[in-house]
Amino acid sequence: MIDKKQKIVTIGGGTGSFTLLSGLRNYPVNLSAIVSMVDDGGSSGILRDELGVLPPGDVRQCLVALSKSDKILRELFNYRYSNGSLVGHNFGNIFLSTLEKISGSFDQAIKEAGRVLGICGKIIPVTLKSINLVAELSGGKEIFGQHNINESNLTSLRKLYLNPRAKINFEVIKAIRQADKIIINPGNFYCSIIPNFLVDGFTEALVNSKAKKIYVCNLMTKTGHTDDFTIIDYLNELEKYISANIIDIVIYNKERPAQHLIKRYAREGEHFIKPGDLGSKKNINFVGRKILSHRIYKQNKGDKIKRTFVRHDSSKIADIIYKL
Amino acid sequence: MIDKKQKIVTIGGGTGSFTLLSGLRNYPVNLSAIVSMVDDGGSSGILRDELGVLPPGDVRQCLVALSKSDKILRELFNYRYSNGSLVGHNFGNIFLSTLEKISGSFDQAIKEAGRVLGICGKIIPVTLKSINLVAELSGGKEIFGQHNINESNLTSLRKLYLNPRAKINFEVIKAIRQADKIIINPGNFYCSIIPNFLVDGFTEALVNSKAKKIYVCNLMTKTGHTDDFTIIDYLNELEKYISANIIDIVIYNKERPAQHLIKRYAREGEHFIKPGDLGSKKNINFVGRKILSHRIYKQNKGDKIKRTFVRHDSSKIADIIYKL
Repeated sequence: MIDKKQKIVTIGGGTGSFTLLSGLRNYPVNLSAIVSMVDDGGSSGILRDELGVLPPGDVRQCLVALSKSDKILRELFNYRYSNGSLVGHNFGNIFLSTLEKISGSFDQAIKEAGRVLGICGKIIPVTLKSINLVAELSGGKEIFGQHNINESNLTSLRKLYLNPRAKINFEVIKAIRQADKIIINPGNFYCSIIPNFLVDGFTEALVNSKAKKIYVCNLMTKTGHTDDFTIIDYLNELEKYISANIIDIVIYNKERPAQHLIKRYAREGEHFIKPGDLGSKKNINFVGRKILSHRIYKQNKGDKIKRTFVRHDSSKIADIIYKL
Repeated sequence: MIDKKQKIVTIGGGTGSFTLLSGLRNYPVNLSAIVSMVDDGGSSGILRDELGVLPPGDVRQCLVALSKSDKILRELFNYRYSNGSLVGHNFGNIFLSTLEKISGSFDQAIKEAGRVLGICGKIIPVTLKSINLVAELSGGKEIFGQHNINESNLTSLRKLYLNPRAKINFEVIKAIRQADKIIINPGNFYCSIIPNFLVDGFTEALVNSKAKKIYVCNLMTKTGHTDDFTIIDYLNELEKYISANIIDIVIYNKERPAQHLIKRYAREGEHFIKPGDLGSKKNINFVGRKILSHRIYKQNKGDKIKRTFVRHDSSKIADIIYKL
């Protein structure tokens, strides 16, 4: 890789991708962010319903992460209205959805927004079809839509699938084919990460790629979704949906969050993720580091979505990925 | 004026300013657009009420007129939502108002939006204070707010004033001081044009300026506001509010609109403006030309404001102004 920038592809949703991209953008790398497209809650959900557009929220977070514009434009894109007729809406989402209405194409909207925000790298929706996430439980019951699934107990989850089925965006195949490293981001596991793998053609593209495949595991479990999951459980689920053992490296956190945060999460039944039996996965290189962010996060007024307070330190993660 | 760009200042509201600026931007001139700030109807009114910002609508029209960006961004700024929770809102207005909320300054918001849109020239709000237009009728009755005044009969208008009183934006004084030509734009006469002259310090700045003062008269009367007005009546009203005879040149239209448009306006009591006794204003140079636009205008879906269909041809007007 002499004289040539690393080509890094990330796979994820909004928040986790934001963290990784915010760190990686400071390295001499070629970035492509693949983004899942099943969001149907909050501002994205309203815009999908009302304007008939694709969900903008996760893409918007990636745009902001990769923006080289001044602070004010990045703040603008993240601005959430706390009152009046725009309450719950987010400016960047409105921006993307309106551009999509005008240009007739979400792809075009992302390009135009990317120019306005002066982004480095590429943001690629995993599919350009309007899709919904469906969870099938073991009794046969189905839960329709990402927002509903996010709020539901998935203890008896049989499988997740997309309705309607959707073909992979060809740009995703291109990016994966050229990648040196492919990162599976942390994030809402069943609602943001796995949905990427459900798109027709996605796992084939991954399996055929010669890139190093790196999984950055979450920090905390999610109640009703990944209760008591160890890192090994996350890996097993990933491999189940990918239908292959493709992960080469796992980056996980070895630093305990502050006690008051542990307690705060515990009240909601969420816990610090334990490694599990790492020795059971002989072919995977497990990289355990202290990678917690020590910034203090606040919930924005008008934001109805629960945000995480224990997060990865984007610089530390990026540094590990870059040097692998 | 050898080797030096003409400095042209326009004074107006939204639509008329849009027309003039769209034409003038194609000439080698330095443009400053002074914009009235009393709009309180439609999308601007909602944003003023809900976000506590200054009215963005007229400024937004000037931004689009002066933008050198590709078509899609200009369309985006003019986009009006026809359904859902954003109905009646306009994207560009939301953009400006949200930037104002974030930056805390309307001035800053205009600058930032100007950079995004790549504008030539400057857009200057006549004042940065939140003001309302008030009409005092001869019986003593008062009508509060531009939107209400726009819908009211002003036959017995005694005077218009601002509540609260507002000081001129210092940038306006600077622009007027440096101007070679000052244009009073066509537009909603009592609701967009005159309100500029009501700002403290504005008429003094005009009177002290050595620039050529050019009035581009409207094309059609407005029911209940300027019924039966001739060009001379418009001039008399202007001079009343400016408290001085400062106009050097009047550009007016000598071309009759198409018969179906004449009829359409006549149904609403609006008529083609006649010159009146031009000889009674000896010091003014009256320039009568065929300056109608022959483009066809359509009302946008979701737009609740009545738009004019008889408009100036922006290129013809600009050419006349440039050569004067």
